[in-house]
Amino acid sequence: GPRKALPIERTLPCSLEELYNGTTKKMKISREIGDMSGKTIPVEEILTINVKPGWKKGTKITFPEKGNEQPNVTPADLVFVIDEKPHNVFTRDKNDLVVTQKISLAEALTGYTAKLTTLDGRNLTIPIANVIHPNYEEIVPREGMPLPKDPTKRGNLRIKFNIKFPSRLTAEQKAGIKKLLAS
Amino acid sequence: GPRKALPIERTLPCSLEELYNGTTKKMKISREIGDMSGKTIPVEEILTINVKPGWKKGTKITFPEKGNEQPNVTPADLVFVIDEKPHNVFTRDKNDLVVTQKISLAEALTGYTAKLTTLDGRNLTIPIANVIHPNYEEIVPREGMPLPKDPTKRGNLRIKFNIKFPSRLTAEQKAGIKKLLAS
Repeated sequence: GPRKALPIERTLPCSLEELYNGTTKKMKISREIGDMSGKTIPVEEILTINVKPGWKKGTKITFPEKGNEQPNVTPADLVFVIDEKPHNVFTRDKNDLVVTQKISLAEALTGYTAKLTTLDGRNLTIPIANVIHPNYEEIVPREGMPLPKDPTKRGNLRIKFNIKFPSRLTAEQKAGIKKLLAS
Repeated sequence: GPRKALPIERTLPCSLEELYNGTTKKMKISREIGDMSGKTIPVEEILTINVKPGWKKGTKITFPEKGNEQPNVTPADLVFVIDEKPHNVFTRDKNDLVVTQKISLAEALTGYTAKLTTLDGRNLTIPIANVIHPNYEEIVPREGMPLPKDPTKRGNLRIKFNIKFPSRLTAEQKAGIKKLLAS
């Protein structure tokens, strides 16, 4: 049989919202095809990719033989590879979503309510009663990414904290803190 | 000429103290050498390695042709490769030494004096006047590892902090902290 051209890979950048909710991407491609007489002519085609909720960076979608046609060669497969665009708020850790919130030391010690908007636009309010230490993580179950094999299930949302300490304290503040924390 | 056997590598584990101060290691090796008649006989030899202050993991010391003697083959070189044993207190970052001290939140906020013993047995006392936040690093100049090319010079000592937060606070403590840190 005719030899086959090597696959052509193209990156398909998706936002985290698109990977969370799923989306349809229409990709315009230009390729050469052979007409009846054997002459090659350029054509444009629109390929449709259904990005499923929970797809990960590296997921591949193959369109068989969508490369250029040449005499005596089977056209290459066209392969789209999902890439994940950086997100302003969330990072992804497998099926979990991770967010870091900047809070004051007073908030860390006396109580804090995390507020954030999910990737599908819902507002979450998460009151945290514990003392928040520098490695504290608040786990919000099932607010992570959908699992690609069962999008009704989800990873967790993990909230981390960047605790802003006061840059200086007065002698009075220090004395007060010493007294309060010694008790 | 005769072909040469491939070099033989042996690991030479050194403590951080030994790499800091320098040391002399005597290594006993057993090898076969040819006697007058061409017969091979086992011999033991003591090799002396002067570990210089500041040597790093991966430093190689080559003893040419200290492998076994075989007819028609030049004996292999014997190569010792410095390895660094883990230390209880310090880790090394190139020429710097890094130490993490566990302190209370009260110490972090109201003042702390770091005390530690150097790798050559001196006691250091380092008062820290600043508020110590979770990413704070106190740099003590020239208390790191000696530079191998000029052991009169040294890297820095970097003190990091693991701040232990109280696991819970009473309503009164929280109210007091809120008042103190708001001012």
